[in-house]
Amino acid sequence: MKVHKAEVRVSYSDTDQMKFVYNGNYLKYFEIGRTELLRENGLPYKKIEEQGYYLPVREAFIKYKSPAFYDEVLIVESVVTEVPAVKIHIDHVIRSKERGVVIVEGYIELASINAKTNRPTRTPQFLVDVIKKYYEL
Amino acid sequence: MKVHKAEVRVSYSDTDQMKFVYNGNYLKYFEIGRTELLRENGLPYKKIEEQGYYLPVREAFIKYKSPAFYDEVLIVESVVTEVPAVKIHIDHVIRSKERGVVIVEGYIELASINAKTNRPTRTPQFLVDVIKKYYEL
Amino acid sequence: MKVHKAEVRVSYSDTDQMKFVYNGNYLKYFEIGRTELLRENGLPYKKIEEQGYYLPVREAFIKYKSPAFYDEVLIVESVVTEVPAVKIHIDHVIRSKERGVVIVEGYIELASINAKTNRPTRTPQFLVDVIKKYYEL
Amino acid sequence: MKVHKAEVRVSYSDTDQMKFVYNGNYLKYFEIGRTELLRENGLPYKKIEEQGYYLPVREAFIKYKSPAFYDEVLIVESVVTEVPAVKIHIDHVIRSKERGVVIVEGYIELASINAKTNRPTRTPQFLVDVIKKYYEL
Repeated sequence: MKVHKAEVRVSYSDTDQMKFVYNGNYLKYFEIGRTELLRENGLPYKKIEEQGYYLPVREAFIKYKSPAFYDEVLIVESVVTEVPAVKIHIDHVIRSKERGVVIVEGYIELASINAKTNRPTRTPQFLVDVIKKYYEL
Repeated sequence: MKVHKAEVRVSYSDTDQMKFVYNGNYLKYFEIGRTELLRENGLPYKKIEEQGYYLPVREAFIKYKSPAFYDEVLIVESVVTEVPAVKIHIDHVIRSKERGVVIVEGYIELASINAKTNRPTRTPQFLVDVIKKYYEL
Repeated sequence: MKVHKAEVRVSYSDTDQMKFVYNGNYLKYFEIGRTELLRENGLPYKKIEEQGYYLPVREAFIKYKSPAFYDEVLIVESVVTEVPAVKIHIDHVIRSKERGVVIVEGYIELASINAKTNRPTRTPQFLVDVIKKYYEL
Repeated sequence: MKVHKAEVRVSYSDTDQMKFVYNGNYLKYFEIGRTELLRENGLPYKKIEEQGYYLPVREAFIKYKSPAFYDEVLIVESVVTEVPAVKIHIDHVIRSKERGVVIVEGYIELASINAKTNRPTRTPQFLVDVIKKYYEL
């Protein structure tokens, strides 16, 4: 599978007094990963909302392997491993760009909500199509 | 003037690698101060939004006097110093509950927006009334 | 097993434009849960660090069941399900206090690091003892 | 004076339920502005800490002119208007890259702390030199 890579630099505000990134902040980095994956495929997440859908997170898992430090550039890898149906599953690995070491591994699952009815729905077809095209499925 | 006091405990996520509270987080503590002031006067901020208004911040000033540390309880003091007209001005002092020392001083000014028109408006009268009553103005 | 309960109120800064709590912020609420559990047992987390240990998160899992809204009080339930050895496993459920509904379920696993050597270590015995006493194990 | 420009994209986590950037988050954007200014002058902030100094914020002022929206790229302008002595004063303007509109204006003042003594000190000379060279003062 293709592995999409996005970069993010650790800001001071992302650290805590352990002198590395606070555990909750990796979910923001995952967000940047999937956002840039979609953008590169011509479908910024903003457009999904404009089409009347939003994609809240329904499940998240993170394995913290090694601390990430202030001012490091991190590589957020994102892979969609299956054609989305009722959920979108995205696997993530975050590495230190300079040190190479794996910082965290994990995944995110997104639901699809119809903004009009505020009810869960299947992944919108235009989003499924973008993912199928990207992965040549 | 009456000084309203609210308490907030410094969480781990609020610190950074300087081992005290990150400078941007005091604006969250100011928010807690004004929110609790309004709640105690029978007007939770949520109700203001339900009435069709929201109150974005239009100006903020913070003087950092002393660091605040992880797990400290802070006292957020809030004073409304004048009857609001086009803006609501709130003076804040944050102190360490245990150590007494002043952590930050500053103020916040809020605008009032009519949610229907998305246009600035005068401070809603029901909010002015709550403040006048509290301060016996 | 005893279920420890801590309360946290959703602040404005915790919401995002979906108009409910941002997915990453529940890890801050989990932190409040385990912090208050330890405090009630006479062992504030701060004291653990003062003893020369820190407890970084090594794994986190969150299942998002229902959105939590601005200004809601949430109940963070925490249960330590086994005597800690190399890791501390804490199960969490977060509920809306007023609505009763489950917001998220999940768990956190903490490692123990010896601050002097910066190396992983077994859970410090004084912490194991506190947990055994609390759960009468 | 030279105006340094850095870019930052508004993430989902930076918004709140008013559907624009939460007021406290601009201080993170100011941080990115001054960090990149220093980096481009060969002095990453990290190196300042490695030299035994840190630069906590001692004063902040923000005037919120217009909301910034999810996924917008913002231009953070930074200008050091005077040779630093006991404080470093940095003026900031943040604009929407695409819309041109001014989002916030403000400033930050930094103190210098000697990490060994934990006492305030004059701005370290190597940092003064970098600023003088950049502005040809």
